[in-house]
Amino acid sequence: MSNKHVVILGAGFAGLNAVRVLSRESGVRVTLVDRNNYHLFQPLLYQVASAGLEAPQIAFPIRAYLRRYKNARFLMGQAEGIDPAAKVVLVEGKPIAYDYLMVGTGTRTNNFGLPGVAQYGFGMKGLEEALRIRDRILSACEEAGRTADAERRKALLTFVIVGGGPTGAELAGIFSEIRRHVIPRDYPELNIEEVRIVLIETGKRILDAFTVSSAQYAEDYLKHMGVELLLGQRVTEITAMGVRLGSGHFIPSFTPIWTAGVTGQTLPGLTTVRGNRVETTPALHLPADSSIYIAGDMNFTQWKDGKPHPQVAQPAIQMGLLAARNILRDLHGQEKLVFHYKDKGNMATLGRNNAIAEIGRLHLRGFVAWSAWLAVHLYYLIGFRNRALVLSNWAYSYFTYDFAVRVLHERNNFPVINHDERDPFVDKTDSRNEIEDL
Amino acid sequence: MSNKHVVILGAGFAGLNAVRVLSRESGVRVTLVDRNNYHLFQPLLYQVASAGLEAPQIAFPIRAYLRRYKNARFLMGQAEGIDPAAKVVLVEGKPIAYDYLMVGTGTRTNNFGLPGVAQYGFGMKGLEEALRIRDRILSACEEAGRTADAERRKALLTFVIVGGGPTGAELAGIFSEIRRHVIPRDYPELNIEEVRIVLIETGKRILDAFTVSSAQYAEDYLKHMGVELLLGQRVTEITAMGVRLGSGHFIPSFTPIWTAGVTGQTLPGLTTVRGNRVETTPALHLPADSSIYIAGDMNFTQWKDGKPHPQVAQPAIQMGLLAARNILRDLHGQEKLVFHYKDKGNMATLGRNNAIAEIGRLHLRGFVAWSAWLAVHLYYLIGFRNRALVLSNWAYSYFTYDFAVRVLHERNNFPVINHDERDPFVDKTDSRNEIEDL
Repeated sequence: MSNKHVVILGAGFAGLNAVRVLSRESGVRVTLVDRNNYHLFQPLLYQVASAGLEAPQIAFPIRAYLRRYKNARFLMGQAEGIDPAAKVVLVEGKPIAYDYLMVGTGTRTNNFGLPGVAQYGFGMKGLEEALRIRDRILSACEEAGRTADAERRKALLTFVIVGGGPTGAELAGIFSEIRRHVIPRDYPELNIEEVRIVLIETGKRILDAFTVSSAQYAEDYLKHMGVELLLGQRVTEITAMGVRLGSGHFIPSFTPIWTAGVTGQTLPGLTTVRGNRVETTPALHLPADSSIYIAGDMNFTQWKDGKPHPQVAQPAIQMGLLAARNILRDLHGQEKLVFHYKDKGNMATLGRNNAIAEIGRLHLRGFVAWSAWLAVHLYYLIGFRNRALVLSNWAYSYFTYDFAVRVLHERNNFPVINHDERDPFVDKTDSRNEIEDL
Repeated sequence: MSNKHVVILGAGFAGLNAVRVLSRESGVRVTLVDRNNYHLFQPLLYQVASAGLEAPQIAFPIRAYLRRYKNARFLMGQAEGIDPAAKVVLVEGKPIAYDYLMVGTGTRTNNFGLPGVAQYGFGMKGLEEALRIRDRILSACEEAGRTADAERRKALLTFVIVGGGPTGAELAGIFSEIRRHVIPRDYPELNIEEVRIVLIETGKRILDAFTVSSAQYAEDYLKHMGVELLLGQRVTEITAMGVRLGSGHFIPSFTPIWTAGVTGQTLPGLTTVRGNRVETTPALHLPADSSIYIAGDMNFTQWKDGKPHPQVAQPAIQMGLLAARNILRDLHGQEKLVFHYKDKGNMATLGRNNAIAEIGRLHLRGFVAWSAWLAVHLYYLIGFRNRALVLSNWAYSYFTYDFAVRVLHERNNFPVINHDERDPFVDKTDSRNEIEDL
């Protein structure tokens, strides 16, 4: 076997697991391409957005991971297109020849072209997006403490989450704990009655990947924690001032978080179907080109009930492993294997000691589910150091009701509400003309 | 005693220690003002710049610190001026009345008006500045691995540090360790012979706060680690391409770090002397106004040999404590105390097990000094959690020769070197027209 070159686009769960398999074969060279220098452990991204974990605790340097794999190299850059005829992928203007290509570029936030979502909504897919949410919330709390305008304070202290999937539910849960345990101690000047957490979902219930009874349990718990659940409500617009619903209702909020949809990060040269995903054979390569594999969130093969695989970590891990195995089998002239998803279940955390988990017929709730969630997520975190650090941060938060990291990096400015339409140049939002002597 | 309002500008070592003293007095209300929401443990800032520690490990949330002090509140904002006659300080347009004011706003980078320093130099005073240096270095290493232009790679891999004080020496030391232990494993495509670390100092020796023999030890060690020491050399200009010296010599570098000077962060209403610092009485208040105290780096009282106190943590801590005590003594009609600096010595770390320390007549070097340095810095880190996390990160780096956090947040772009003056539109910097098949 000659020295074959495998190019992998995306250092997500699919890409890293593919590298692991391919590295066993000395006759293969691997180039892993990612526009970031880190692998992001996306299941814990909501912890970064809510100041519970610091970025490096869920972002693992790709080069550190590749150290143990001598036949793999890393190339930081944005993949721009594929030329299947020439077997070349373009990375930032540079053509790179491949023998096999595995695309595992995942998804990004989908705003469905709704007005204002791209401009004013806060996405929750990337690390930088999560950090922007954290800065936003910390800035809003500081600003709320000093504004004399009650209406503006309301918009500052209203946190709207659009989308009732796991990310939305997890954010709502952790925000409700911050309201209860952190704000009274850190912001004594704020009235926590004024802090609103609103979760908006188009469907009749949240968490549709779970059974009705688990979802009902989650809804009851979030309501108990003071989250306002707006079910069967569609967002039609996001403005600088807040969120407009299909009902015409407007929710004033300077922090509208958009978790309502994702779309595949495709690239020119691939033919996509619904959700910008790509259909493959059961062996995970393109029907017309057995040198191009698609793994993870981007893959649109059927799973059950006519639906594709869920866009979560487990299918990505399993697809990355199988795609890599099939590349090796192809090199050795062996027949390719067919992908069979081993469903390991669903989990969503709702708070510091509450979660729901469905593993086959086993349905868990409350502290038991939370413990299982903790164990699974720590287990899958890459790298010993991260696991230990994440656990220590969690233990700290758990026992102190505190949140570990609250460093505000980039302070946000917020719109000023003009209460006098006739004279827009009169700033009535704070009492700057009076000397404050609290 | 009526309810007196003490306003403290700056949550540095002086400000936080003043809050601690003032909080003992129930008849006093304290407002602590800072433009950031965190206290920065500046002695470890070089660890953030070199990816050894994460930002929250040296940045402690002010509101968390203030929780235990019921008579203190926090106001995030930029102080803009003082009106001593009206006893009012302006914070972002808002006038705040005070009975006593303590200014501890510290210093910022001073570029001395040298051409290009503000635009192309990387400062090392604030947290965001340190994070920018980290992103710069990580970006430069990635870019160096892919450029085919040897001259450009040279500028990417040359890290110039201007200023031979503790910050400059510490950065040079840690960079030399990264070159030796991290780059060969993380960037196998780079030739570490091409990585240059240059330390430029105007004086005849580095570390002028130390004795000649300690400084000589540090110089010998840095040279042994491959740092190029340019002593008695003055920087005259920094451009997008590198650093120009008074000798006319030009060092191509895309990462020129400027640690060569600081200037007081003064504000309108204060009269400053050299270095934008403010002279006070020995009791630390203004000669003409006993309601305004100046503490920390901003204070220009004489210490010994006609020089003011050094601009490091210890004088700031001790001044903050004394200024607060004098405010309370004034309220009680007691005579004010005179500041006597208790010199606790000087320390600078040179590497993972090397440092110099001068504590009175005790001069330490090597591992013993490094252990003392570690103990002192951990002791002074605010908050138990931070201490434990910092120690665990250090232990990890120490035993693995690894560096803990290498998450690249904002990728930098670098200039392209034009090798053909006659046709500036021909891009010869990389082989984009050839297909790479490594």
